[in-house]
Amino acid sequence: MEEVVALCKSRGFIFPGSEIYGGLANTWDYGPLGAELKRNIKDAWWKKFIQENPNNVGLDSAILMNPETWVASGHIGGFNDPLIDCKACKARFRADQIIEEHLHNAGKEMSVEGWTNEEMVSFIKEEGIACDKCGKKEFTDIRQFNLMFKTFQGVTEDSSTEIFLRPETAQGIFVNFKNVLRTSRKKIPFGIGQVGKSFRNEITPGNFTFRTREFEQMELEFFCEPGKDIEWFNYWLEFCKNWLLDLNIKESSIKLRKHEKEELSHYSNATTDIEFKFPFGWGELWGIADRTDFDLRQHSNHSGVDLEYQNPHTNEKYVPYCIEPSLGLDRVALAFLVDAYEEEDVDGDQRTVLKLHPKLAPYKAAVLPLTKKLKDEAEELFKNLAGKFAIDYDERASIGKRYRRQDEIGTPFCITYDFDSKEDHAVTVRDRDTMEQERIKIEDLETYLEEKLKY
Amino acid sequence: MEEVVALCKSRGFIFPGSEIYGGLANTWDYGPLGAELKRNIKDAWWKKFIQENPNNVGLDSAILMNPETWVASGHIGGFNDPLIDCKACKARFRADQIIEEHLHNAGKEMSVEGWTNEEMVSFIKEEGIACDKCGKKEFTDIRQFNLMFKTFQGVTEDSSTEIFLRPETAQGIFVNFKNVLRTSRKKIPFGIGQVGKSFRNEITPGNFTFRTREFEQMELEFFCEPGKDIEWFNYWLEFCKNWLLDLNIKESSIKLRKHEKEELSHYSNATTDIEFKFPFGWGELWGIADRTDFDLRQHSNHSGVDLEYQNPHTNEKYVPYCIEPSLGLDRVALAFLVDAYEEEDVDGDQRTVLKLHPKLAPYKAAVLPLTKKLKDEAEELFKNLAGKFAIDYDERASIGKRYRRQDEIGTPFCITYDFDSKEDHAVTVRDRDTMEQERIKIEDLETYLEEKLKY
Repeated sequence: MEEVVALCKSRGFIFPGSEIYGGLANTWDYGPLGAELKRNIKDAWWKKFIQENPNNVGLDSAILMNPETWVASGHIGGFNDPLIDCKACKARFRADQIIEEHLHNAGKEMSVEGWTNEEMVSFIKEEGIACDKCGKKEFTDIRQFNLMFKTFQGVTEDSSTEIFLRPETAQGIFVNFKNVLRTSRKKIPFGIGQVGKSFRNEITPGNFTFRTREFEQMELEFFCEPGKDIEWFNYWLEFCKNWLLDLNIKESSIKLRKHEKEELSHYSNATTDIEFKFPFGWGELWGIADRTDFDLRQHSNHSGVDLEYQNPHTNEKYVPYCIEPSLGLDRVALAFLVDAYEEEDVDGDQRTVLKLHPKLAPYKAAVLPLTKKLKDEAEELFKNLAGKFAIDYDERASIGKRYRRQDEIGTPFCITYDFDSKEDHAVTVRDRDTMEQERIKIEDLETYLEEKLKY
Repeated sequence: MEEVVALCKSRGFIFPGSEIYGGLANTWDYGPLGAELKRNIKDAWWKKFIQENPNNVGLDSAILMNPETWVASGHIGGFNDPLIDCKACKARFRADQIIEEHLHNAGKEMSVEGWTNEEMVSFIKEEGIACDKCGKKEFTDIRQFNLMFKTFQGVTEDSSTEIFLRPETAQGIFVNFKNVLRTSRKKIPFGIGQVGKSFRNEITPGNFTFRTREFEQMELEFFCEPGKDIEWFNYWLEFCKNWLLDLNIKESSIKLRKHEKEELSHYSNATTDIEFKFPFGWGELWGIADRTDFDLRQHSNHSGVDLEYQNPHTNEKYVPYCIEPSLGLDRVALAFLVDAYEEEDVDGDQRTVLKLHPKLAPYKAAVLPLTKKLKDEAEELFKNLAGKFAIDYDERASIGKRYRRQDEIGTPFCITYDFDSKEDHAVTVRDRDTMEQERIKIEDLETYLEEKLKY
């Protein structure tokens, strides 16, 4: 992990947010390479989940929504962390976390999801759990802390102008269900997907970009007929897993974690997380949930708008069931970086290489003039390729060093323009992974790259 | 305008935000077609401003920043609207707006930017400006209202945890100047660009998506040597104008508005707006500003971090000057829609057509089986093309009606699979603008579209 974080900082993938002012909690800014990586991940998701899928369409709804949305969704009532303070030293904890940590230290892995406040408080007392900071064993009662960021729209600051930053993109899809149905003329089954920022006022953000207060999501809500939901749930679970594997995630780096009956939300028929083996342990990457008709029904009840679907053949009306594959962009970006990171011995030398899938690599190729004397020709080549692909250009230091620099940032191909190039109108193309070199005619280069970069 | 708004709603470009709950002020959700349009605009911007430009790199910084950023940038001190209330009916106005409206009604077009509160208050009194709502002429004093949305990070709500939603993406670039310089090894002149959401608590949002509280920006900060700034300012002004024209914006729809000396910010050497002729009047689309070294100097002074650049040849150190072309994505999307909208008479019939540039069109082509009997073959064709382009598929209603539907959403090509297609392995391709039809071999279709869609 430390190596990956160091590489991210030194090569411009990820910087601490507002760094010159000492940062801001656990916020992160994506540098030039990180911005390209994120763009590529979003593109790969959009291509497979929206563009190529005749059933699915995209959406781009606002972050600021009418607060009734969050009443209906349950976020105003139930999206809370149970906070508890040490009476002696005033340190603040999440009650669920100190209990789970206590159990973990006792060799038991279990979740306290679903416990009441009273159950947690008495468990802490009975087990004699002590404050992590001062060792005392006196805690306050639990108070619920809502995780939504609150702000005020307009001039006055009171409850009438209070609005929230969305804690998930999903609700923007549900409230637009009817609009999309009407304008896209889709028939069930169909899905609506979107990519965008969400915000959660987490008490304990951390693990680099794994848990941040501001994060980006890629969510699909796939609507189907009740009774066919488990079939579609399995379809999307498989689809998501394959999306990761197709983008070079190692099979051994992920596992499926099925939520058992007790852990399932009351409205869910099935939920499975795809977990990734982060350096700090297995962590949730992708949640795939069968949410039944819960969300549409909540919004229908709360808004008074009929959100039923009418089967055009049978005229039967029903509230569709919904399968939700929900992926955190920042998490999956971190997973791709961690999984692609390798240190290899090459002839006694060590090379660091990011074996990113070409679709995700920030640069698809780098144009390298053998010496600065060939700068003009190499720049011309850069210009011709940059209209089609994201290309880097580097003329500083030895070719060997420049290869290593490109390996480190995951560039699949290095294209060297040398003194022969003027004569044979060809260049040397080096493959990042095999380190093998080929001589390719300049006129064939575009087709060559296109073929190699197909996704 | 009404036609465009109606089309946006009926065909799924733009919906009122949170509509089932009666909306939220002037927020908007982009539907399936609007989401694609926005993606395409961002892509076209990124391609020309970042990818193809060897001097420029991208960035993706966080919306939530350390609040010291806004002290340094001047947003905490000076990013205010001058509010004034009618004493009789309590209606609230922006003092600058009621003055400018008063002048406008008197046939004078002028900006009151730079007026003090006292000047505005006495002007309103002297001119006897009346309340628009009740007609009374008694107003309160002006109070400054900060336009940044405020929220709290963490559990407590006080000034120590107060943070803001960024009112512009630019400052995320300035605070990362040194990080990008260090990691990208760029030399002056170079630029850093990013696309992202910004928020301003506007008192009077309106004109559809022209002025909204939540909006998306595409900003470039281009750093150059002091003294070369006007040269680069002119370069980028021309570049921005051509970007619009290349994407089909009519020359007659835009004009340049140079800020006169009195209107210029104290730190700016030159500012020119590219204005667009919206149906409600000329409005600012793109602000191109020479901001000198103001921003970097402010951040350097405030953070204590040295933000100078050292010329690698002369070792001379200086704080770079900065040219900022700042474009609102929602505004330019609206401009593209308005500019592309046409109603034409075709053989006595009216057709509505969005003459969007192919790069921007939500769908590049639509696959239409002549009858539902050809569904399987047409779907196969859709599948083959959808791996490469954004393709629509439509099998409902007559071919003529389907053509019209595609015209209305700007699809450049309609591909009809008919009964001959099985025999001659060819399809009819109809051009949106000329309405001419060509017979194209299916195996040549991908190359045909690629050629036509080149950008």
